[in-house]
Amino acid sequence: MSQDIDFDRYDRIRPIRWTGDALELLDQRKLPFEVDYVRCADSDEVAAAIHALTVRGAPAIGISAAWGVVLATRDVQADSGAQALPLLEPAMQRLNAARPTAVNLAWALARMRRVLASAGADWREVLAREAQAISDEDLAANRHMGALGAALIAPGSGVMTHCNTGSLATAGFGTALGVIRAGVAQGRIGKVYAGETRPWLQGARLTSWELQQDGIAPTLVADAAAAHLMKTGAVQWVVVGADRICANGDTANKIGTYQLAISARHHGAKFMVVAPSSTVDMDTPSGEAIEIEERDPGEMFAIGGVRTAAHDIVAWNPVFDVTPHELIDAIVTEKGVIERPDAAAMRAAFGG
Amino acid sequence: MSQDIDFDRYDRIRPIRWTGDALELLDQRKLPFEVDYVRCADSDEVAAAIHALTVRGAPAIGISAAWGVVLATRDVQADSGAQALPLLEPAMQRLNAARPTAVNLAWALARMRRVLASAGADWREVLAREAQAISDEDLAANRHMGALGAALIAPGSGVMTHCNTGSLATAGFGTALGVIRAGVAQGRIGKVYAGETRPWLQGARLTSWELQQDGIAPTLVADAAAAHLMKTGAVQWVVVGADRICANGDTANKIGTYQLAISARHHGAKFMVVAPSSTVDMDTPSGEAIEIEERDPGEMFAIGGVRTAAHDIVAWNPVFDVTPHELIDAIVTEKGVIERPDAAAMRAAFGG
Repeated sequence: MSQDIDFDRYDRIRPIRWTGDALELLDQRKLPFEVDYVRCADSDEVAAAIHALTVRGAPAIGISAAWGVVLATRDVQADSGAQALPLLEPAMQRLNAARPTAVNLAWALARMRRVLASAGADWREVLAREAQAISDEDLAANRHMGALGAALIAPGSGVMTHCNTGSLATAGFGTALGVIRAGVAQGRIGKVYAGETRPWLQGARLTSWELQQDGIAPTLVADAAAAHLMKTGAVQWVVVGADRICANGDTANKIGTYQLAISARHHGAKFMVVAPSSTVDMDTPSGEAIEIEERDPGEMFAIGGVRTAAHDIVAWNPVFDVTPHELIDAIVTEKGVIERPDAAAMRAAFGG
Repeated sequence: MSQDIDFDRYDRIRPIRWTGDALELLDQRKLPFEVDYVRCADSDEVAAAIHALTVRGAPAIGISAAWGVVLATRDVQADSGAQALPLLEPAMQRLNAARPTAVNLAWALARMRRVLASAGADWREVLAREAQAISDEDLAANRHMGALGAALIAPGSGVMTHCNTGSLATAGFGTALGVIRAGVAQGRIGKVYAGETRPWLQGARLTSWELQQDGIAPTLVADAAAAHLMKTGAVQWVVVGADRICANGDTANKIGTYQLAISARHHGAKFMVVAPSSTVDMDTPSGEAIEIEERDPGEMFAIGGVRTAAHDIVAWNPVFDVTPHELIDAIVTEKGVIERPDAAAMRAAFGG
């Protein structure tokens, strides 16, 4: 099924560029109005860029952190990986602390630690190769998931997505947006709806722009209009990404995802989560155990430097929410599709 | 119960001022950053101001339209109301067409027509008195509804609202916001949450500002965060206004209301609609028959002149949605409280 998708045509947007001596991150705060790369010359600059949302999207954060470790090796003198490991630990801790909810960050750092522990004198090259592998595997996973997820969608379907889960959020092609790209390429998806995704407007700024590059014209809707849209029968599938998938299938994703899942169930639309297995965290039993990042309320008071809210007010700005597995019809990873996910189905797929 | 509320302290904001020869409308597009009144010297300027959202909120639109009719009398020579009626009809039609969803507009015009039809030589004064009565009755209705609605709320409750239903949307005190003011004054409401209300951000700009004047500090939340908030148990009641209430209790209100109602039901929170009986339209059997205004998609692409979405994209911008009566726990009008509204309960309360 995946043979009929020309993946290379989706290869134009590169949010993460490794130059050999620096990490260049496409500044997602400025998109789509300015295409500007921020150059990170050391690991703390990478951590700061992750925290500031210069780079965002769970897989992209993991990949960036891996390159951040490679940059940190410059300050370390060691004859072996085992010797380097404790010396790199402080930088890895700072990378890990940049954002709390996406597990891909911790997962990528764990991979780097693991290869480092058994590396010899060529430990620097081992780390660089591992960072590249994390990136390459993410792209391959996305392409595979695109085909797997699209196969669930009946021809002529309308699909709604939230936030940005495309090339900008990954090594390329995207997770949920990869499924949408594949579904459109295969003629399964007739219409794509993108939620604005307040407060950062990833849908309005990033997803709309990304899909436009592919000749797909999504229809932007206010986050609050989703249920009204579903009531019209326009949406057969809600397709979203994930920042962490728990051992029972509960899924943390961008704030607003949970509300979409409730509305989808209310209207008989299906709900699909698409994420690489690096997003699966079998050590977190359920959604209650996930730390939900809350960001500066100021993010809700201004857009592009223009004040959009009354002065001196209070806001609550959680960045993620948790969708309980009962509301999820399918979790798609590169390892396969889990329909009606629960603890048993997750254990069967991911062990643990 | 209403004796313990000092209504006069909520009397500072006046969105609609009649000067005797012009209508001055507080420009709600510029709030809260600029307090500026737009002067309407004829009825077409009133219609344009209603269409442009200079004035908004179903009751405020109705009151403004009534004053618009008074302004239209200047161009008419007639010896009696019956003679004036057909001459005023074109201006009334233009006022009526300014916005399609709120029924208060048509209701106010119908009241003006009715008194005009039986008026004698003093038909101009009769119309001016009727416009003033529409405004005065709205304020009285809001105060009464405030007490009625607050009585439903158990002490210590958290309340969420949407859009702006306060003094700015009415002759004063507000509908849903009147209930919230009364509930706070009586110590029933511990915490108030206001949804941003994209795309116009009435919650961020208007409701936050209005409540602030009263010393109430609402917590602003993204529209998409409402379900996540409810899951924390912070919300016992969602309290909203209405633009049209049908004969079976189905209610049209600001886009996003329906989604809140679904989430409230999902979490066991109660859902209250507060609107004067002028919002009740017994001639519309159910929500399916309501015309939902769709506005320029451009409203979703920029804020304060700053572009916030990718260029050359498509958007869907419905301004209202319909909450079916099954999701409504109480409709509060100045005539009383209807719990679990349906066609029979509505007929018992409003005849027809």
